[in-house]
Amino acid sequence: MSLPKQVRLVEVGPRDGLQNERQPISVADKVRLVNDLSAAGLSHIEVGSFVSPKWVPQMAGSAEVFAQIERKAGVTYAALTPNLQGLEAAIAAGVREVAVFAAASEAFSQKNINCSIAESLARFAPLLEAARARDIRVRGYVSCVLGCPYEGEVAPGKVAEVAGELHAMGCYEISLGDTIGTGTPGKARTLFDTVARAVPRERLAGHFHDTYGQALANIYASLLEGIAVFDSSVAGLGGCPYAKGASGNVASEDVLYLLDGLGIHTGVELPALIAAGQRISEVLGRPNGSRVARARLAQ
Amino acid sequence: MSLPKQVRLVEVGPRDGLQNERQPISVADKVRLVNDLSAAGLSHIEVGSFVSPKWVPQMAGSAEVFAQIERKAGVTYAALTPNLQGLEAAIAAGVREVAVFAAASEAFSQKNINCSIAESLARFAPLLEAARARDIRVRGYVSCVLGCPYEGEVAPGKVAEVAGELHAMGCYEISLGDTIGTGTPGKARTLFDTVARAVPRERLAGHFHDTYGQALANIYASLLEGIAVFDSSVAGLGGCPYAKGASGNVASEDVLYLLDGLGIHTGVELPALIAAGQRISEVLGRPNGSRVARARLAQ
Repeated sequence: MSLPKQVRLVEVGPRDGLQNERQPISVADKVRLVNDLSAAGLSHIEVGSFVSPKWVPQMAGSAEVFAQIERKAGVTYAALTPNLQGLEAAIAAGVREVAVFAAASEAFSQKNINCSIAESLARFAPLLEAARARDIRVRGYVSCVLGCPYEGEVAPGKVAEVAGELHAMGCYEISLGDTIGTGTPGKARTLFDTVARAVPRERLAGHFHDTYGQALANIYASLLEGIAVFDSSVAGLGGCPYAKGASGNVASEDVLYLLDGLGIHTGVELPALIAAGQRISEVLGRPNGSRVARARLAQ
Repeated sequence: MSLPKQVRLVEVGPRDGLQNERQPISVADKVRLVNDLSAAGLSHIEVGSFVSPKWVPQMAGSAEVFAQIERKAGVTYAALTPNLQGLEAAIAAGVREVAVFAAASEAFSQKNINCSIAESLARFAPLLEAARARDIRVRGYVSCVLGCPYEGEVAPGKVAEVAGELHAMGCYEISLGDTIGTGTPGKARTLFDTVARAVPRERLAGHFHDTYGQALANIYASLLEGIAVFDSSVAGLGGCPYAKGASGNVASEDVLYLLDGLGIHTGVELPALIAAGQRISEVLGRPNGSRVARARLAQ
């Protein structure tokens, strides 16, 4: 299989990234980050989430962020919504695309969202129905696809099962997340090859964490499997390599550099993306988590 | 082409790594590092270099290091030797394998070793002749194979030419170095495909720097091209990701994790390698440059 000519980058920094940062960040700074990202050419940005601020304090104010961002034509501004209540709040804030998340590991599902995989999928059913009725697109995440912190190895067939159900329920795209970053390229290829039997390949995305430094190798392997959508986080937000227990989001700049080098079109401009990442890193007072950004800014 | 079943890791930390670290390091610490590495299962270790300590003060004492290390059967303990004088000193210290280095970029050759590529090769001729007469194996390095800090792009054909000459002069293996770490997987594949027309593929090695985070993706791409020898540096020595202008050696632990995940045999034990890298990082008082080590040690 040859490499895709074009890739869509799904920027998860403002949501998946910031929710894992320790410092509180103002609505104004979030708005500026989202605007910087769309100005850099990103066409898909996960802006925030509509969850209880009791659980994820960093995501309080998502409605305000949605109200204040400049909405650029052709750009998807998405939000994470765990339930119907979140969906309603998102719709009220003008959101047109939401995301839901399930796990491929029973133990992770229990510890992370306090229910079984089957229960989590059942809970999404009314959300997906309501979304369909209101013409809201829903993206699905599956976590722990290449390993679970509690169970260890996760069978590709189990991932295919969960991804297939989310797709059947109406998710237009399923993002497979290597939550703990333990995957390696051969396993990533086997995974996509297996899941593609349950969900069309063009409906699959890769979400790799760089905890073990394997993210770009896994993305290259996924490209060789025909995967053409990847999630990443500007400046590696949420995955500070200097902190213990970091979640380890792969940095968008590093993914873009890889894709640019392979001659794959994304529509994103590297210098503008680096500037956006450096600006939010300075706001947070943390080192820039992108190696490409550090190399370029040191020149 | 299928992946190789076995890979030889050439550990360059004690030489290429330490020579780029700022802190002075004692002979005893160097000896312990080399012994730790051979105990971890590495079969090829670049221990030091025989160059003027005026130019590379970190490498003073290489003879003492060679005198004091425990020599494990089946392990190659190599030294870098820029000239005949260095070769004689190395042989006197009991060295049985040496390495020479040339560049694929004229500008880099001039600025780095103060002569043209052709002149540098001509200077190696007596060294290679003397080495052959004394039954000393010689490995060749070519730098700037995927980009030059002064010239930018470097033609794969130029790399093939320099590599071909080193091979013809008697180097048993040619290591192709992405000195500034700007390479990406497609370019790495084209490079090896081109150079393999001048030097048999099984005589080629990859030496990737992680300055732009691309090293593991490039190694995976090289494996797909049938390359089965890779240089790396324990704890990412010499490539501190926290410093400006870091050389960016890829961390051996991260390469080993990749190879283990692909089911490729190396004979190296990850826990022992992580311990060796952490010990030298503590001696140097610098953060461990291996993501795998950081992830494992945080558990």
